[in-house]
Amino acid sequence: MKKTFTLSFLALSAFAQAQQQNISGFSSASAATELQHEKQFDQSLSAKRIGESIKQLSAYPHHLGSPGGKAVADAILAKYKSFGLDAHIETYNVLFPTPKTRVLELQGATPYTALLKEPALAEDATSGQEGQLPTYNAWSADGDVTGELVFVNYGLPDDYDQLQKMGIDVKGKIVIAKYGRSWRGIKPKVAYEHGAIGCIIYSDPKDDGFTQGDVYPKGAYKNEYGVQRGSVMDMVIYPGDPLTPNVGATKDAKRLDRLEAPTILKIPVLPISYHDALPFLKSLEGQVAPSDWRGGLPITYHIGPSKSTVHLKLAFNWDMVPCYDVIAKIKGSKYPDEWVMRGNHHDGWVNGASDPISGQAAMLDEAKAMGDLLKTGWRPKRTIVYCSWDGEEPSLIGSTEFAEDHAKELQQKAVVYINSDSNGRGFLNAEGSHALENFMTEIEMAVTDPQTKVSVYDRGKARELVNTPSAKGKKEILDRKDIRLGALGSGSDYSAFLQHLGITTLDLGFGGEDPTGDYHSIYDSYDSYVRFKDHDFMYGPALASVAGRATLRMADADVLPFDFRSLCSTIDRYSKEVQELANQMRESTAMNNSLIKSNQYTLAYDPDMHLPQPEIKSEVPTIDFSALKTALETLKQSTDKLDTEWEQAAQSGKDQDKLNQKLYRAEQQLLYDGGLPRRPWFKHTIYAPGFYTGYGVKTLPGIRESIEQRNWPELQQQIAIAAKSITQLATYLGSE
Amino acid sequence: MKKTFTLSFLALSAFAQAQQQNISGFSSASAATELQHEKQFDQSLSAKRIGESIKQLSAYPHHLGSPGGKAVADAILAKYKSFGLDAHIETYNVLFPTPKTRVLELQGATPYTALLKEPALAEDATSGQEGQLPTYNAWSADGDVTGELVFVNYGLPDDYDQLQKMGIDVKGKIVIAKYGRSWRGIKPKVAYEHGAIGCIIYSDPKDDGFTQGDVYPKGAYKNEYGVQRGSVMDMVIYPGDPLTPNVGATKDAKRLDRLEAPTILKIPVLPISYHDALPFLKSLEGQVAPSDWRGGLPITYHIGPSKSTVHLKLAFNWDMVPCYDVIAKIKGSKYPDEWVMRGNHHDGWVNGASDPISGQAAMLDEAKAMGDLLKTGWRPKRTIVYCSWDGEEPSLIGSTEFAEDHAKELQQKAVVYINSDSNGRGFLNAEGSHALENFMTEIEMAVTDPQTKVSVYDRGKARELVNTPSAKGKKEILDRKDIRLGALGSGSDYSAFLQHLGITTLDLGFGGEDPTGDYHSIYDSYDSYVRFKDHDFMYGPALASVAGRATLRMADADVLPFDFRSLCSTIDRYSKEVQELANQMRESTAMNNSLIKSNQYTLAYDPDMHLPQPEIKSEVPTIDFSALKTALETLKQSTDKLDTEWEQAAQSGKDQDKLNQKLYRAEQQLLYDGGLPRRPWFKHTIYAPGFYTGYGVKTLPGIRESIEQRNWPELQQQIAIAAKSITQLATYLGSE
Repeated sequence: MKKTFTLSFLALSAFAQAQQQNISGFSSASAATELQHEKQFDQSLSAKRIGESIKQLSAYPHHLGSPGGKAVADAILAKYKSFGLDAHIETYNVLFPTPKTRVLELQGATPYTALLKEPALAEDATSGQEGQLPTYNAWSADGDVTGELVFVNYGLPDDYDQLQKMGIDVKGKIVIAKYGRSWRGIKPKVAYEHGAIGCIIYSDPKDDGFTQGDVYPKGAYKNEYGVQRGSVMDMVIYPGDPLTPNVGATKDAKRLDRLEAPTILKIPVLPISYHDALPFLKSLEGQVAPSDWRGGLPITYHIGPSKSTVHLKLAFNWDMVPCYDVIAKIKGSKYPDEWVMRGNHHDGWVNGASDPISGQAAMLDEAKAMGDLLKTGWRPKRTIVYCSWDGEEPSLIGSTEFAEDHAKELQQKAVVYINSDSNGRGFLNAEGSHALENFMTEIEMAVTDPQTKVSVYDRGKARELVNTPSAKGKKEILDRKDIRLGALGSGSDYSAFLQHLGITTLDLGFGGEDPTGDYHSIYDSYDSYVRFKDHDFMYGPALASVAGRATLRMADADVLPFDFRSLCSTIDRYSKEVQELANQMRESTAMNNSLIKSNQYTLAYDPDMHLPQPEIKSEVPTIDFSALKTALETLKQSTDKLDTEWEQAAQSGKDQDKLNQKLYRAEQQLLYDGGLPRRPWFKHTIYAPGFYTGYGVKTLPGIRESIEQRNWPELQQQIAIAAKSITQLATYLGSE
Repeated sequence: MKKTFTLSFLALSAFAQAQQQNISGFSSASAATELQHEKQFDQSLSAKRIGESIKQLSAYPHHLGSPGGKAVADAILAKYKSFGLDAHIETYNVLFPTPKTRVLELQGATPYTALLKEPALAEDATSGQEGQLPTYNAWSADGDVTGELVFVNYGLPDDYDQLQKMGIDVKGKIVIAKYGRSWRGIKPKVAYEHGAIGCIIYSDPKDDGFTQGDVYPKGAYKNEYGVQRGSVMDMVIYPGDPLTPNVGATKDAKRLDRLEAPTILKIPVLPISYHDALPFLKSLEGQVAPSDWRGGLPITYHIGPSKSTVHLKLAFNWDMVPCYDVIAKIKGSKYPDEWVMRGNHHDGWVNGASDPISGQAAMLDEAKAMGDLLKTGWRPKRTIVYCSWDGEEPSLIGSTEFAEDHAKELQQKAVVYINSDSNGRGFLNAEGSHALENFMTEIEMAVTDPQTKVSVYDRGKARELVNTPSAKGKKEILDRKDIRLGALGSGSDYSAFLQHLGITTLDLGFGGEDPTGDYHSIYDSYDSYVRFKDHDFMYGPALASVAGRATLRMADADVLPFDFRSLCSTIDRYSKEVQELANQMRESTAMNNSLIKSNQYTLAYDPDMHLPQPEIKSEVPTIDFSALKTALETLKQSTDKLDTEWEQAAQSGKDQDKLNQKLYRAEQQLLYDGGLPRRPWFKHTIYAPGFYTGYGVKTLPGIRESIEQRNWPELQQQIAIAAKSITQLATYLGSE
């Protein structure tokens, strides 16, 4: 057994070396040139310069609509131009709320008024600056509410199921939820769906504070006053400017009335620190919270309701502000109308040294290296487009408005969209369209990890091997050559490209060794970045090398390195997952209903607790997945056939133009024009952010969410829709 | 599917009703009489009287060797006599250390002297009494040590493996460990094995304090000053008086020198509250503790070592004290030399209202009900022996000395030993010898749960069904008629009977709905019992009804209701477990060694942490389990044959005496005279307390622990020993 493993390592290593000479999509001759370009490209990158960029661009608060934001956009524009790129700013006019009034009070016997303020620290030079946005959740409703308080754990649907089991109702009450486990916007949305009149979100020290490690400024973790700002827009309906869904927020765009915009919250929401949360949590009475709900504060966590009432008053300036996207191009020599797009946002909630400047600075160094290559006479075959987005933090505004504004052109021209955001020390996280698994595998094998000097591929594999508990699981990892790309949900600027337009997408970033607590706070600063994150900025060049290589190879490939067999096997895996999900749910529903009817829960509960029985759930019918299975068989035949065609074109050098066009527009076949149920903006039938997870992806989302939400008629429709789009892709790929 | 489940319930219910008329081991005629006796027995029981006994016997501190302990023994003796039983006290002379000096100090910049004191509370009438034992761990060494402090999580072998991975050594240092996850005595023993010079054990609020629920006296959980006293003797070597292993601690017994007694700890050990622990934990520096090590205090848990030193000074009075076992008999009419034994200890660490008086009071009511039956003219066929043990808390002293003193007689006469200890509200926990699974199933079906009015069997089944996550697991539970008895490790007075003498054993007690925090503290009082535990004392009669019924049926059965087919299938399950354990360990060792050799761990770790590679472990050889498998096949044939013999004897009424003797002495065949490796006192080859778990059972202990400790030569020996004892049992049961 041991011998086998050793052989596997050797085999992989030899394979990796061979790969250095071959690049999918390049002939031997063009591969040699490409490798030469990549070498020059890498030599242009500079950790020192990236560190300087981070310092420069995070020197002042620079949120959407702020003077600092404009200054950062201008600085980026100047940089692109200085590198020799053709750059300009595209401006959109978008709604952006900032706080006017913020009051949170505990009333009654032991009153408390929340501080709602992060203090300046001597150890953090930028923490006391003017122009910082106060702690708040953008897109909260204006409101002035008073009510009893209930603790709802992370505020997710399962938590309300648990509350129901405990006999607790939040109607007419204010809820307090912990940050974590979902995108924050889900918490007030679900609270509202359950009748709550207000929502407080706090960072519990167990998830984000002293339980995790020493707190700032001694360590990197959240101190008692730290607050996570952030958007709570209902972005799973649609992201971007809430007044202009589906169209760019140009000056003259037709706009919704603000009060009709479906993505703006209906109740007031406020994020607070754990210092501020403590008196509120202490005021709760009633049952003790279930063990996995309890946090790290030195109290017994109760569910509530509180005896004392809570007063929450919020009002916002609902201003229209300019949103500055900086766009820089290098025109393609052979295929100027095929665009390889690369993006990272530039706006932060405050100084944003990590989020997003660490990624932005790396991307700018990438653009500089491209500029240096240009000076040597190189021209990319395809057009390269660098995009520094504004307004990502409030709701992916800059990227979404750009994508909506240029939708038709992008669907014609965009070969790929390669995104990044915050960058840190450690391991590459690569997510995206599954036709690019082999492509990314080759790139990870070609780039060296700066700390260990092995390839990024080998380092990622090592982590996967060590973290997988079973020997069987480890064996599977050893046996798999290609990396697995994670599927994309949401949370950064790729959403509109992938899920609205069907453009093949990648999202790249290093991390895993950066302690965190600064996220969306005034402490996301240069000072904290150099102490606790990528201290020597060495992962800046690493990201630039990975993303720049992806950009270069896509721009210069003879035949685009898309392999839809990976996509096919991935969808097949998802298909098996949803079938298994339905089967398990059928079995467990039948069993649980039977246990409820025969009184087993009542007998199992402590009678002193007076708990209600769980509710009977609708039985899961037999579900016909045959259309999906048939579609996948068709896709398999079609992708196998395409592979032959691809190999022929690559070897013969003939018919490449038409094939390339077919390849890069293929993912659009997976769009369904009607979109997902109750959120038509999201048109991709394979990937979407979850309706109740937010950032977290749901694959085969129409099918999976119908099952999760026990909507059986809709499930049958969604199977048909997914099957149709998969068949459509098969037909498209199979056509000459 | 639903229909099937419903049918299962109905089927079980009908089965349960039918059972009411039949009792295994009784002819129809004697079953009718027996049921009549059981009905009368139940009518004699009184929750009110049990409550009064709890109040009376927990009115003063009554630990081993105390005036209160003598008074409790005398009160119990008087009760037995008043019920009409033939009672006396057997006295042993045993070593028992009590504290003379207790000092724990943090030195350095922020010095702290530990309080080591639980305060009296107005809400708890007995909490301020004279005569309480101070907070301490009995059998700590005398010592005066000073050193740096290291946090070792729960102080178990795996925790030291983790420390090794983090590059931390405890040699020459004092360790601080959390209570929990093992018997407390394991923590200082493992610390000593790793070179520590002292050990502090504290109750972390996450496991035992405010994280769990409101603290005493507001709620039941441990307040910041509460301390768990307890023995840290190395009882997995042998329990009982450390000076008299294998023999009764009679006045003239030959005794070891105290300093040679192998079960007394070699380093000083002290338990403390979380109030006292906080300054010590705060003093720790170095790496942050792994996430699952972190407790509920509002600090970042570090591993250490501390910058400041810790001073621990302990000295004890090593006194010889009398140990009073109260023994009460009802002589058998037909088989006076067959003894049905029933026991529960009477000593507490302080007032001990829950531990052990709740169980003792129920047992006394049982004895009273037996006395009432005697008055109606009933006489048991077999002799019934009630035992109220002293000295259980320090190390099962009273029961162990009695068992060692009367070893030969007990191996001749004892049909069964039925133990109980603390009793509470909720569900029956039944553990013991697996030949009694069907016997206990019938009893659980016959006794009504006082809160829900269904049978104890149905209530236990309901909890099992609700707590089992998968539908498949639930289905298995529905399909299984017999309850499963848990296997016995240690922690109460059954150890000597089962594991030293091979007497068939049961341990019974209700619980699961009692919040706890009072364990071994001054707050284990009548006041806390009536507020937070079995508030109406209704589970007192429930325990008396279960254990009394078991006693009555064993005493009056025509043919003893032992079914060794259950034992056979249980050992077969254990056999499969240990084979699977060895296989998994072989696979994971080979894999991990291979990953270590190919540098995967180093690549996966954060280089900034400077972590050492894990150590290469010895490869697991191929292990020959065939002797064990063959032995089990032989046992299966033999137990199937015995079943026929049993049925014939039961129906014909013939040859019962000889069969009965064979049945009740059978478990002794599973003893191996040489005992377990390095602890020959433990002779049972199927059940033992784990060498590194303490209370927690290891089944097939010789085999399982050889695998866990990677001792391959010993493993092969232990397979042979277990196979031999199983074959021996098979031959014994198969003989005419």
